[in-house]
Amino acid sequence: MNLRDHIRDVPNFPKEGIVYFDITPLLADPKVFQYTIDMMAERFSEYKADKIAAAEARGFIFGAPLAYKLGIGFVPIRKPGKLPYDTISVSYDLEYGSDSLCMHVDAIAKGENVLLIDDVLATGGTAEGMVKLVEKAGGIVSGIGFLIELGFLDGAGRLKGIANSHLLKL
Amino acid sequence: MNLRDHIRDVPNFPKEGIVYFDITPLLADPKVFQYTIDMMAERFSEYKADKIAAAEARGFIFGAPLAYKLGIGFVPIRKPGKLPYDTISVSYDLEYGSDSLCMHVDAIAKGENVLLIDDVLATGGTAEGMVKLVEKAGGIVSGIGFLIELGFLDGAGRLKGIANSHLLKL
Repeated sequence: MNLRDHIRDVPNFPKEGIVYFDITPLLADPKVFQYTIDMMAERFSEYKADKIAAAEARGFIFGAPLAYKLGIGFVPIRKPGKLPYDTISVSYDLEYGSDSLCMHVDAIAKGENVLLIDDVLATGGTAEGMVKLVEKAGGIVSGIGFLIELGFLDGAGRLKGIANSHLLKL
Repeated sequence: MNLRDHIRDVPNFPKEGIVYFDITPLLADPKVFQYTIDMMAERFSEYKADKIAAAEARGFIFGAPLAYKLGIGFVPIRKPGKLPYDTISVSYDLEYGSDSLCMHVDAIAKGENVLLIDDVLATGGTAEGMVKLVEKAGGIVSGIGFLIELGFLDGAGRLKGIANSHLLKL
């Protein structure tokens, strides 16, 4: 199965001149979605994680089924103001400006191995933010798994020293 | 297994005087999370759906694993400006003010049966919005499944005529 056949190119989103890779056709086809999660389980289980953490919203679509499949706990990483209990947070740089991510203070125990999951590795800003957040909690990022890596942006260069992998490189 | 034991009460969130039911302990425990998805599959498969649709962000955490488990396609419902392709949208009333939800125009085919999934049924505003959206696309809502129903808010009263169920009533 070629996952590329189930990703739709949408020109000029989110702005003029950008081609956006739309994953919704992949999600809509049950065989393709199951294959994707099964492939993630096969590829990313080498990272030996105690927990999976993923950032809202698209990260939840892959991180939660993978946690279910692998039988490990799921930790939601969210934008400020969304998590009800006490949180820790980090700011991280984006192409223009910055953003923040939050996690519950008790989401990850000291020394726990965490697998981070996201749909796309672009510039690596969000992934770097997630790594900082897990490390701030005392956890260890054992690996990061993406559905798609955008090779021309070299986000992986920003994640040096941290094992990471993807199902599809575009 | 009593799911209630894995829901944390957080007082005064999102505002003074409200007790918020925090689902993150349930997600963090792999056995409890797997049990929750398996119970949803058992209870909600009677709705005979061709697709599962869920709204960001917490809906994705339950809707996506359930789609994986049941082997049916997953449709993300999102806030305006998030989906890359052409969308349809609906506005719906909240306790104070209103909000909008969007879905890709080709996410649901005419006559398809759709199971809607969300974590909590509160006033029913979001659920009603999701129903409108599916019906606008020409789909049929065969049922709505929630993790938690807040009985004292009578959200189910707002969903009259549409089959709905939950794992836990609080």
